[in-house]
Amino acid sequence: MYVGVDLGGTNIAAGIVDEKGDLKYQKSIPTKAKRNPKEIINDIRDLVLDLIKEYGLLKDEVEAIGIGIPGLADEDGNVIFCVNLGWKNVPLAISLNKQLGIPIYIDNDATVAALAEYECGVMMGAESGILLTLGTGIGGGIILNGKVYSGYNGVGSEIGHMVVGNNFYDCNCGRNGCLETFSSSTAIIRYTEKLLKESKNKGLIYKRIHCDSEELNAKLIFDCAKMGDEIAQQAVKRLVKYLSLGIINLINILDPQIIALGGGVANAGKYLLDLVIEDVKKNQYYKELPIGKIVLARLGNEAGVIGAAMLGKQ
Amino acid sequence: MYVGVDLGGTNIAAGIVDEKGDLKYQKSIPTKAKRNPKEIINDIRDLVLDLIKEYGLLKDEVEAIGIGIPGLADEDGNVIFCVNLGWKNVPLAISLNKQLGIPIYIDNDATVAALAEYECGVMMGAESGILLTLGTGIGGGIILNGKVYSGYNGVGSEIGHMVVGNNFYDCNCGRNGCLETFSSSTAIIRYTEKLLKESKNKGLIYKRIHCDSEELNAKLIFDCAKMGDEIAQQAVKRLVKYLSLGIINLINILDPQIIALGGGVANAGKYLLDLVIEDVKKNQYYKELPIGKIVLARLGNEAGVIGAAMLGKQ
Repeated sequence: MYVGVDLGGTNIAAGIVDEKGDLKYQKSIPTKAKRNPKEIINDIRDLVLDLIKEYGLLKDEVEAIGIGIPGLADEDGNVIFCVNLGWKNVPLAISLNKQLGIPIYIDNDATVAALAEYECGVMMGAESGILLTLGTGIGGGIILNGKVYSGYNGVGSEIGHMVVGNNFYDCNCGRNGCLETFSSSTAIIRYTEKLLKESKNKGLIYKRIHCDSEELNAKLIFDCAKMGDEIAQQAVKRLVKYLSLGIINLINILDPQIIALGGGVANAGKYLLDLVIEDVKKNQYYKELPIGKIVLARLGNEAGVIGAAMLGKQ
Repeated sequence: MYVGVDLGGTNIAAGIVDEKGDLKYQKSIPTKAKRNPKEIINDIRDLVLDLIKEYGLLKDEVEAIGIGIPGLADEDGNVIFCVNLGWKNVPLAISLNKQLGIPIYIDNDATVAALAEYECGVMMGAESGILLTLGTGIGGGIILNGKVYSGYNGVGSEIGHMVVGNNFYDCNCGRNGCLETFSSSTAIIRYTEKLLKESKNKGLIYKRIHCDSEELNAKLIFDCAKMGDEIAQQAVKRLVKYLSLGIINLINILDPQIIALGGGVANAGKYLLDLVIEDVKKNQYYKELPIGKIVLARLGNEAGVIGAAMLGKQ
């Protein structure tokens, strides 16, 4: 059995996962991210111990613990950066291994989610695949030849920071035009706000948020677009345009067998998927040749825990 | 011994190459691209036979013939597209193999050049590397784990068609903003023309082309930039900005060990390289972490023949 931990800015989720990737039992606790790393690491330790005990396992029966983090770790499991948690050079794997005596593996949360989709989701059996997690930002996970690919220095698969155009606001990373400033939930909210400010006829969406743009969210915008609201449709169209453009760039570079869309924005489901596929087909480079399949991710929120657990298996 | 053939729109170059990648003997003939494929294939056959005879080899001593084409071939060596030659579905490998009785391998010319740099150039021994050939267009070749990488459907490594911004003219491929419309020799010529048209003080560059923009070429623009000409410097700055942006995108996705710049534009040498490295360092995503080395390609025009020959070795 494996344990997977999804260390997020808000919650820490952990689960017992078998070698097929089935999530057997899980629980979660609040991260309280402002505390110092040591306290959070102790909470992870206790959460894992509780989980093992409550599921009725012995510690020896856990082959490995994997942890997905919203940041970057090196091969030894040191967390190099974790912006949301304010971590820098935290020896997470060594600390936990010392306290638990179980091998610890750490990787980026988007990479881990891609691994989950590869082990038991929509990328199962694929030679190569890319998962785009369309959330408040855009994360990317790349699988090549059945293995997680993070590049020579471990700084690859940051697909959200591929520049694809010029935008009306800069990315958190300091550059302009990153994919995540066009096609994340934050991006579609900011663009819809801009449209609402600039337009006279504010339509359905303005009523639904009670004239308060603080109430805007991606789901609401997609719902209004489906109902024919013009501003919402314009915002969705722009998100789709740049997402398709990013996907075509990925095809032109890596040509993966599968491209999967996950994260909150992908909850718009088939409506979003059909628009993206149509746009990609219209604009792909080799129009007469086959390209990878574009699909919705399958595992949803559980991908973080399952994929983290699968790090141990890899 | 191996034979490498570089099938270009203007010339067909072929050479005898040993297993270390040393080019022992070569000759070339004009392509006369407007002829039908059969005539061109017969010329390739005769060129290869002449080469073998003149170098004093027996046909049995040639282990394989590799051919780099300005287009796309499938795994069986059928040329799917070759726009410059007007070829579509030409069974190049089968035809030549039937006539010569030697195994034939075919791949894209930019991919083949990357292979040459990997086998005996600046990417030798690297785990991963990307070669950008900055010519009239921009070609790309990717090496991963010591092997040519062309993707699941063979349509990858088309790096020149990665969209990186909005441009004042569309790409040949029908889209707007492809890297090759910013950073190829064609791109810098078109942008310089535009600047000359729009500016009152046309400076050094205008004198050097005798007021005739037909005389513009990338070398001249770089030479004038080095001498301080304002318009030329502005054009180089823009080429560098988008080239760096494309390189950062590649790092954010693939994070290769080496990125090599080849093709005519890279003849600007250290002047161009220093500007690109400075720009990439300033704008890279993880500022404190190491990234791949950016270098000039080493093999120049010979990369095509050497890399094609190395296809047989792979």
